[in-house]
Amino acid sequence: MRDVQLKSMLAEYHAHALQGIEQYIPDKEPRKYLYDLVADYPQRGGKGFRPGLCIAVCKAYGGTLEQAINSAIALEFFHNAFLVLDDVQDGSQFRRNKPTMHQYNNIGVAINVGVAMNVLSMKPLMMNANVLGPSLAVKIMHEADHMVRESLEGQAIELGWRKDNVCELEDGDYFRMTLKKTCWYTCIQPLRIGAIIGSRGRENPEKLNRFGYFMGLAFQIQDDILNLVGDEAKYGKEIGGDLVEGKRTLMLIHLLNHCTPAEKDRVRLFLSDASPQNREQHAAGILKLLQRYKSIEYARKIAKTMAGAALKEFYTVFAKLPDSRDKAFMENLISYMIKRDY
Amino acid sequence: MRDVQLKSMLAEYHAHALQGIEQYIPDKEPRKYLYDLVADYPQRGGKGFRPGLCIAVCKAYGGTLEQAINSAIALEFFHNAFLVLDDVQDGSQFRRNKPTMHQYNNIGVAINVGVAMNVLSMKPLMMNANVLGPSLAVKIMHEADHMVRESLEGQAIELGWRKDNVCELEDGDYFRMTLKKTCWYTCIQPLRIGAIIGSRGRENPEKLNRFGYFMGLAFQIQDDILNLVGDEAKYGKEIGGDLVEGKRTLMLIHLLNHCTPAEKDRVRLFLSDASPQNREQHAAGILKLLQRYKSIEYARKIAKTMAGAALKEFYTVFAKLPDSRDKAFMENLISYMIKRDY
Repeated sequence: MRDVQLKSMLAEYHAHALQGIEQYIPDKEPRKYLYDLVADYPQRGGKGFRPGLCIAVCKAYGGTLEQAINSAIALEFFHNAFLVLDDVQDGSQFRRNKPTMHQYNNIGVAINVGVAMNVLSMKPLMMNANVLGPSLAVKIMHEADHMVRESLEGQAIELGWRKDNVCELEDGDYFRMTLKKTCWYTCIQPLRIGAIIGSRGRENPEKLNRFGYFMGLAFQIQDDILNLVGDEAKYGKEIGGDLVEGKRTLMLIHLLNHCTPAEKDRVRLFLSDASPQNREQHAAGILKLLQRYKSIEYARKIAKTMAGAALKEFYTVFAKLPDSRDKAFMENLISYMIKRDY
Repeated sequence: MRDVQLKSMLAEYHAHALQGIEQYIPDKEPRKYLYDLVADYPQRGGKGFRPGLCIAVCKAYGGTLEQAINSAIALEFFHNAFLVLDDVQDGSQFRRNKPTMHQYNNIGVAINVGVAMNVLSMKPLMMNANVLGPSLAVKIMHEADHMVRESLEGQAIELGWRKDNVCELEDGDYFRMTLKKTCWYTCIQPLRIGAIIGSRGRENPEKLNRFGYFMGLAFQIQDDILNLVGDEAKYGKEIGGDLVEGKRTLMLIHLLNHCTPAEKDRVRLFLSDASPQNREQHAAGILKLLQRYKSIEYARKIAKTMAGAALKEFYTVFAKLPDSRDKAFMENLISYMIKRDY
């Protein structure tokens, strides 16, 4: 499968999820500070990995788009809620090439919209009862409950690192935090839900955990790399934003563990500075350190290793399934995770 | 029923809900920036109106504490989640005599905790399936879904008024906003859920809407009055906080509609000031205006009228139910709503 085909399938599944989201947004007041804003982030686009994974796995297991669509809608809706709230929490400035919601509105309104999006995401999962029966619907609700809890726990770990200016971290700490914050909701749970639906509850979803974990790590490391050295117009967020926000990326942890004590003190001081303006001013110097210690190359290497591990898991789990367009999509998506430039 | 008996029943039902909340908080990491904080606001106390209403109505309808408890836990948990997020949105300083969560921690962590509390509140509603059967459990989930949506819509209306510095408001605007933001989640839905459980789904919950609406209005107006002229130690929040935050209370709306054009300009300017320090400095002057125009007396009168209307509704809806301690509790709670000093 060529990249152009893969992108077209991704766009197709994403479009289905976005159409669905639109239908779940109440067509009523208050619009200006609620329901119009609920529609904003989804309308800005995005890659659609989560609904793509869920629908493709469901179909690879013999299910249909119709069976997967409500869950795919919920996944994309939860993701967008998470972005609105995450942008407030991180003080981010741009999202998908536009100002973040709290920037063009205010923090109070953005929080309310983010929480509303979380609440609205539950409705398609309730509607699953009509398509899949109540038993499977409840099973998927428990998957979603777990997914959101893991993300919140991962977010708490990351926010704690920043708040306490934790600088003594190993790769393993990053992997565990990313497993919680990213892997469950970006890969593992979309894969599990797709498999549960496609197999009508017969597949043991635990089998997909390792695949989703490696894939999610590859995805997140690539995302962190693009945030440092990507093309701002394609990437859609401010380049270097993670650095300014003090995010403990694999690169930053590599640097902290390889630079001189004096340089480490400098990085620690940079990270402890309460003023975003000051950090913005000094970020270029930290980027130079990251380049000098080849921390970005190191992260690229790890992302590649993770993608390789994901591919091995793919062959293990999907070997028994008949060949299909969706199975091929899944396979190719793995390497695409680390090739993408947006 | 004397006040001391009423308070003791309220405390008893509240204690049941708090014990339940504790059981639904995961006993695991990350504690410092998540699960320890999830427990904070509920542990600070509060009045427990919502679980009290739900349990008492359930029992008045012939149900038991055991049947109502999961829903009562969810109501109290949702309420505490709402408070954590509301305090961030309003920039409030104190809650139940202690610094608000974003004050003693930071905004990012407080948002994450508030969202986590919302998610955790869903679990007792799922557990209802084991006690009440899946059909009644799903019915109550839809009640909770509606409750949270109404609150978020009310919050959006109020945040919009502040953001656009809306000063042309009537009493009816305040009543509609309060119906959405307060009445549904403080009174109407707790009453409905209690009646649904107590009657095993046989009572038409719509019958309780007017009762809850009037009771909720009386409650909220009294709360707004206490925020202006209450005893800070008893009330637990900074006195005058609503004024500094620019909340459109019934008193403020009364003032805006009765003062001179010059005074109205002064109030409008005060409300438009982006600096909380400036507003804090000028709040005493606005309070004097509220006193001069007897706006607080006016609000007291309206609260009394609403309590009277609630009592009339109580007699209409509860007349058919046999006399009981819980029925008497419900009746006495109405006047207590406007007598309370905390």
